[in-house]
Amino acid sequence: MMYLRNSWYVTAWDHEISHEPLARTILGEPIVLWRTDDGSAIAFEDRCCHRHAPLSAGKVLGDRLQCGYHGLTFDRTGLCVEVPSQDMVPPAARIKSYPLCERNRWVWIWMGDADKADVSLIPDTYWHDHGSWVSIGDKFSVACNYQLLIDIQLDNTHSRYVHPDTLGNAGSLRHSPKVTRQGEQIHNTREMRNSDPPPLFTAATGHVGNADVWVAWTYSPRAGIITFDTGIAELNSGIFEGERGKAFRLFNTHGITPESDGTCHHFWVSARDFALGDELVSEIVETIRDTFLEDVEMVEAQQRVKECSPDAPQIDVSADQPTIQARKLVARLIKAEQI
Amino acid sequence: MMYLRNSWYVTAWDHEISHEPLARTILGEPIVLWRTDDGSAIAFEDRCCHRHAPLSAGKVLGDRLQCGYHGLTFDRTGLCVEVPSQDMVPPAARIKSYPLCERNRWVWIWMGDADKADVSLIPDTYWHDHGSWVSIGDKFSVACNYQLLIDIQLDNTHSRYVHPDTLGNAGSLRHSPKVTRQGEQIHNTREMRNSDPPPLFTAATGHVGNADVWVAWTYSPRAGIITFDTGIAELNSGIFEGERGKAFRLFNTHGITPESDGTCHHFWVSARDFALGDELVSEIVETIRDTFLEDVEMVEAQQRVKECSPDAPQIDVSADQPTIQARKLVARLIKAEQI
Amino acid sequence: MMYLRNSWYVTAWDHEISHEPLARTILGEPIVLWRTDDGSAIAFEDRCCHRHAPLSAGKVLGDRLQCGYHGLTFDRTGLCVEVPSQDMVPPAARIKSYPLCERNRWVWIWMGDADKADVSLIPDTYWHDHGSWVSIGDKFSVACNYQLLIDIQLDNTHSRYVHPDTLGNAGSLRHSPKVTRQGEQIHNTREMRNSDPPPLFTAATGHVGNADVWVAWTYSPRAGIITFDTGIAELNSGIFEGERGKAFRLFNTHGITPESDGTCHHFWVSARDFALGDELVSEIVETIRDTFLEDVEMVEAQQRVKECSPDAPQIDVSADQPTIQARKLVARLIKAEQI
Repeated sequence: MMYLRNSWYVTAWDHEISHEPLARTILGEPIVLWRTDDGSAIAFEDRCCHRHAPLSAGKVLGDRLQCGYHGLTFDRTGLCVEVPSQDMVPPAARIKSYPLCERNRWVWIWMGDADKADVSLIPDTYWHDHGSWVSIGDKFSVACNYQLLIDIQLDNTHSRYVHPDTLGNAGSLRHSPKVTRQGEQIHNTREMRNSDPPPLFTAATGHVGNADVWVAWTYSPRAGIITFDTGIAELNSGIFEGERGKAFRLFNTHGITPESDGTCHHFWVSARDFALGDELVSEIVETIRDTFLEDVEMVEAQQRVKECSPDAPQIDVSADQPTIQARKLVARLIKAEQI
Repeated sequence: MMYLRNSWYVTAWDHEISHEPLARTILGEPIVLWRTDDGSAIAFEDRCCHRHAPLSAGKVLGDRLQCGYHGLTFDRTGLCVEVPSQDMVPPAARIKSYPLCERNRWVWIWMGDADKADVSLIPDTYWHDHGSWVSIGDKFSVACNYQLLIDIQLDNTHSRYVHPDTLGNAGSLRHSPKVTRQGEQIHNTREMRNSDPPPLFTAATGHVGNADVWVAWTYSPRAGIITFDTGIAELNSGIFEGERGKAFRLFNTHGITPESDGTCHHFWVSARDFALGDELVSEIVETIRDTFLEDVEMVEAQQRVKECSPDAPQIDVSADQPTIQARKLVARLIKAEQI
Repeated sequence: MMYLRNSWYVTAWDHEISHEPLARTILGEPIVLWRTDDGSAIAFEDRCCHRHAPLSAGKVLGDRLQCGYHGLTFDRTGLCVEVPSQDMVPPAARIKSYPLCERNRWVWIWMGDADKADVSLIPDTYWHDHGSWVSIGDKFSVACNYQLLIDIQLDNTHSRYVHPDTLGNAGSLRHSPKVTRQGEQIHNTREMRNSDPPPLFTAATGHVGNADVWVAWTYSPRAGIITFDTGIAELNSGIFEGERGKAFRLFNTHGITPESDGTCHHFWVSARDFALGDELVSEIVETIRDTFLEDVEMVEAQQRVKECSPDAPQIDVSADQPTIQARKLVARLIKAEQI
């Protein structure tokens, strides 16, 4: 499987990385994540350079990681600094370390050329931990190729069938999305004037009747995430002209990271900027977890079919434009890396 | 794995197919089985032509099947008649449908060239649901290549060892079977005059001492079934001359359908024409389920050995003639299809 | 996977082999182990020569083994002596039998050329069942290639990290081992004068302070075992000059037998020659089971890493000499067999 390597990928929630080493497979490579005593998050390949014991079975000692088999000890750069059974450390004794970026409760890993690891490639996701927002989130382990999970997020037209009780509104089928590519990102905006709101919004806001509804998303392959900027407002309150003061907003982030050919990690956040302290609204918004699990059920079923018949032809429809463009962009970025 | 494709295979009990789509793999192909509102059973490939979602995760709407991912809807022939997100249906949007034949509580599927699907290839199995018979039956999922399960049914000489308590009688070892091929079927008849009856018959009929015993079977590869016509009668009551009025008869049907190289579906029926309302006799006859499970245990053990040593040589004995002839016939039919 | 075939391998504890046939896979080959009515242990390939049913599903009849499918019966040499459905036994009907050697509670199997099966290749392991010793033992199923499990036994320097509470003493890191090859065996002796004893010895003997400590092992690839001769004694009591009368001795045996590429059987014995009837000491010595399970945990973790990255390079340190020499010896013996 060919992956985009010069890219950030969400690798963990910040609270998952501690003084207890954490094993996680990213792009098929075993990684160990740990924190030094000064709190820095570190990512190494999870394989001692000596006898291939997993370093995730080792121990953090201050700012060093010690292998649990023969006690070889590595500093934060991955350089071996101690071999207990001898005085000299072989000069080649070193393990690969990966750049990390910790931001807004998530920790991204850079799997490619370390020199190219540019944190400015990661879009702002301030709603994860901003005081004006309330957020929930989790990590799912999903048994499908990561592209299927990206597809279902970028797809405008499945909600009516996969999420009839929460996100599916008739408007999403009636409105053609505008898909645009800007540099290495893909954007999509649906402006649904005078539309039935998605059922989740109706429940969470108490809004009655039609509303002005928007769904805008940005897919950033170099950051491994898709951000959703969605909301509803009173009819003609100016949201399409940028006036969102009176809107109810729900921002979601999906971090989709390949684990192996047929599995991926799904990190997600859902945040709102209204009724922050309202427990009842929180309970309603938390049902989005079930919505995302409906996605998971569908893509895992797709994966099973595709494994059974990998070469079956498929037919495209107009609504596939966003997913087709996203796959083309990723394929182009991967190809550019191979040269 | 090469299968005989121009053949009927038992694919389901009639009651298994309903308005809830049913997924079942046949000859390695994922199939979805469902009924229209007029009760017709339909078989489609279980893969939407759009994004390969399994149609078994969809919904029956009258005489149409709707995909659960994007709502594409197919008529009973497999033609796509609706794409909710657009007005036009792409002309190539169609999924493969398979001929079915529903008869005597079983539903057969035709996996080959639809033009050759001839229901007259399916032998009569009236004892499944005839008023003068009482039948029981089930479906087992068996972890072996289908030919091993066919072998054990056609084999005369394993009963003494695999089923010592129910079917194994000494007579079955003493009497040479007559195996004959007639067209595309194989027949076998064992006439055991003055023999010890199989223990199951002794228990079910109360018969004491020796009896005239017969076992006749027909293997029909084009229907994927083996039918057994067995019974016992008083000595010299004329059963070998066709007089069965005073005999106790037990007819069994085995529908053996490849699922994958190493697994198959085992549909079976066991029917009797005596003591129809006698609960005690029913309980005795129902022990044949355990007898068939003894077969399953043996063929699954064989399968594990064969997977471990696929190329180990084997030695034939005289009693292997039925299974050798059956395998030769199937190989010949498969080869004829390839030309 | 290439294995050393002209070699004994521990295949079972003596009490595991009975009149109930036992299935066990050795070097990837299915084996059935059983005893005749005169108590002789017999090993056959676990596959009937007729239709490949596992003979482990059959029955012992006196000094014969009967297949559970069609009743073919084999004498103790593997020759078929009965085919119930016919008078004649096909001359080629025979199954492979393997030499066995039963000694000191273990049963070794010879997987190569039977003419070369020489029981003198098996070193004495009298402490398994000698009256002056008390022994415990078991068999673990370990999910790793057998060489990883051999490595960890031959390795001097992991105890401090893998077994900090039982076997790890500082002395084992400070003392260079002397590794020598003698013919087809590898020996290693560590003489630790005035050393901290391993914690297990301290607990079992009540010894206070430093002691003279020794660990000597012999790896015998032609017997599939590693024997450990270890102990402690008062300082300067002469143990390094061969005076062991006042020492506390613990002898361990590891029988490590490949099952498949990625799994092996681990037979082990731990025996002591002191405080034979002391329950408390027995309890302490029995914690060695947990110590060995710590080894298992490590090698299984290694195996998972190696399966993920089979071609990753590794770096050697000085303390790897024993394992490197052992692997070289086995590779040389295997190569010599191929010619």
